[in-house]
Amino acid sequence: TTLGVIKCKAAVAWEPGKPLSIEEVEVAPPKAHEVRIKIFATGVCHTDAYTLSGSDPEGLFPVILGHEGAGTVESVGEGVTKFKPEQIIVTQGQGLLPDKTSRFTCKGKQVYHFMGTSTFSEYTVVADISLAKVNEKAPLDKVCLLGCGISTGYGAALNTAKVDPGSTCAVFGLGAVGLAVIMGCKAAGATRIIGVDINPDKFEKAKEFGATEFVNPKDHSKPIQEVLVEMTDGGVDYSFECIGNVQIMRAALEACHKGWGESVIIGVAGAGQEISTRPFQLVTGRVWRGTAFGGWKSVESVPKLVEDYMSKKLKVDEFVTHTLPFEKINEGFDLMHAGKSIRTVLTF
Amino acid sequence: TTLGVIKCKAAVAWEPGKPLSIEEVEVAPPKAHEVRIKIFATGVCHTDAYTLSGSDPEGLFPVILGHEGAGTVESVGEGVTKFKPEQIIVTQGQGLLPDKTSRFTCKGKQVYHFMGTSTFSEYTVVADISLAKVNEKAPLDKVCLLGCGISTGYGAALNTAKVDPGSTCAVFGLGAVGLAVIMGCKAAGATRIIGVDINPDKFEKAKEFGATEFVNPKDHSKPIQEVLVEMTDGGVDYSFECIGNVQIMRAALEACHKGWGESVIIGVAGAGQEISTRPFQLVTGRVWRGTAFGGWKSVESVPKLVEDYMSKKLKVDEFVTHTLPFEKINEGFDLMHAGKSIRTVLTF
Ligand SMILES: NC(=O)c1ccc[n+]([C@@H]2O[C@H](COP(=O)([O-])OP(=O)(O)OC[C@H]3O[C@@H](n4cnc5c(N)ncnc54)[C@H](O)[C@@H]3O)[C@@H](O)[C@H]2O)c1
Ligand SMILES: NC(=O)c1ccc[n+]([C@@H]2O[C@H](COP(=O)([O-])OP(=O)(O)OC[C@H]3O[C@@H](n4cnc5c(N)ncnc54)[C@H](O)[C@@H]3O)[C@@H](O)[C@H]2O)c1
Repeated sequence: TTLGVIKCKAAVAWEPGKPLSIEEVEVAPPKAHEVRIKIFATGVCHTDAYTLSGSDPEGLFPVILGHEGAGTVESVGEGVTKFKPEQIIVTQGQGLLPDKTSRFTCKGKQVYHFMGTSTFSEYTVVADISLAKVNEKAPLDKVCLLGCGISTGYGAALNTAKVDPGSTCAVFGLGAVGLAVIMGCKAAGATRIIGVDINPDKFEKAKEFGATEFVNPKDHSKPIQEVLVEMTDGGVDYSFECIGNVQIMRAALEACHKGWGESVIIGVAGAGQEISTRPFQLVTGRVWRGTAFGGWKSVESVPKLVEDYMSKKLKVDEFVTHTLPFEKINEGFDLMHAGKSIRTVLTF
Repeated sequence: TTLGVIKCKAAVAWEPGKPLSIEEVEVAPPKAHEVRIKIFATGVCHTDAYTLSGSDPEGLFPVILGHEGAGTVESVGEGVTKFKPEQIIVTQGQGLLPDKTSRFTCKGKQVYHFMGTSTFSEYTVVADISLAKVNEKAPLDKVCLLGCGISTGYGAALNTAKVDPGSTCAVFGLGAVGLAVIMGCKAAGATRIIGVDINPDKFEKAKEFGATEFVNPKDHSKPIQEVLVEMTDGGVDYSFECIGNVQIMRAALEACHKGWGESVIIGVAGAGQEISTRPFQLVTGRVWRGTAFGGWKSVESVPKLVEDYMSKKLKVDEFVTHTLPFEKINEGFDLMHAGKSIRTVLTF
């Protein structure tokens, strides 16, 4: 089933800090244990913006970004038995292509893959172990988001923190990840879910997802951890950092109740930045955790999350505030930076 | 049963950084819900030295230190029903006396209590909720140590980390606390227990307690976390900091395996010092914890730990390297500072 080189449209990041350019690229056929995918839809996530900004010390250029993608199998390399053309899948990033070479060229130059996914392209090649087969009836322009942020936040509450029924939770940052954490806390039976954001426009949506109270740090002169400790008579049972700000990671830990409070870091901080606290915070019984992809095993878990979405246990549509044609990808980034979108989905 | 003021010997810390003075002090009778104890034996612990040094921001002077003590009930205040004179107990520190006044005077001056215990005195007064009744046959000059360090280390492995059978553990600092952690890891079925200390004289004893390998950071030019990650093919399952050094707390976390490794802080750091690391260490699945008293509930757990000692499940005698008469208390501190003792027990 392996055909020749495909020429198609992709958004190339030539260098850090510049808008993406829509270019014609060449996509080589899949090698052994690789699959070439026709992307149908892809989300725009902070991790893409982080690498594009140049802050990611491991970022390589030129590169095709994008990692929340869904599409169909176009062709498969040798030894791929699990996937046949036309089956529907959601891609999942797990590093570079295993053989560390690229399948992309543009204007005669090699272009790097990103997170093993590179979904900002009409066609991409990924390792077969990075693919999850999903329900054929699932709308790809929605479930593409289960490839990253929504699953991460939902799993952070259910798998990483294992939120108990009746507990009090604080969620710092009410973007897609924070909203998904709220959805997970609610599903786990938390009774108080406190949303924290410096942008009060985020509160209404967070309420729809299950948040019961809101705090805007800008309304308080004292440190936000003190505000939360007072509101909750000693601190929350679980807290989640969904921003990527090392000061807020500290505040989230210190907002936890001594003896049992647990804090989960989800946000990705800038290169070289460090978290810190007094060790007394941990010695007195708080626990500091983090999560990557919410503790899900992507190949096994993503199809189940898609089923949960199909049976309405899990919201996904509510995260999509904007759907744009792929060509308007830079507008997607602008909406995100302006705090105006929860998630923009790009369709081809 | 409440009699008058008792005059007796105690070691008074008049000011930070000076040796203790053996003085005659007055010990007032116990008030409601308090018990006056005749101390039989007491251990000398780092926490006493920490407060004596002046580094403890909450340290108050003059004070009677000491918190690893065992003795018998001399008299009880009103409303104390659980304790009768002559029953044997081990004291447990839980802050100041509940009413925040002192029962000690010396040379006409009020002397502060320490950790609600003040066992460096022939007689002391403690809150009844800070007492644990123990087996009458238990040798008090040994089980006094179950009041702090040994129980803490042992519980850090069993209760806080919940070490799994077959796992690999690293223990940083091989004083009493570190040895007790090793004992706990062994009891939990760990197969590799790596002892880390800059004083190689500590290795032989650690081996008797169950350590299987040793690392002296001074023998290596690279960071100790890297040495451990290499030795263990990716990192340890559990690590324990039993020193009180914030750099080693970081090293202990970073020596853990990504995805599941858990690090427990037991050491008490200097005032104002902070731990730090890159959040990536947690996002990739490591967990940072701490423990106070190894997660035991003192009143319930200490009597059980004494029973475990009596039935030889738990070592205690092996921690006692020196037994000195109470008057030689400063020698006990000197031995500790010189790294020559594991624990010195003082007897009256
Ligand atoms: N660990 C993982 O596996 C994983 C997966 C996906 C995303 N992430 C990371 O999660 C983070 C959140 O992603 P997102 O897409 O929801 O981002 P987002 O930008 O949509 O949301 C961030 C929210 O934080 C708020 N905020 C910013 N500074 C704040 C402050 N000081 N106090 C309170 N609120 C503040 C913003 O107003 C915004 O609402 C990012 O760092 C992203 O890289 C991590
Ligand atoms: N969390 C709690 O509830 C609790 C209870 C008791 C004791 N503690 C604390 O635990 C710590 C240990 O107590 P201990 O009585 O075992 O002390 P200790 O002094 O007997 O042992 C410390 C050991 O660490 C070693 N060491 C020092 N610096 C080192 C370094 N850079 N690298 C490797 N090893 C190093 C020393 O050689 C020594 O063997 C202290 O900080 C004490 O205050 C905490």
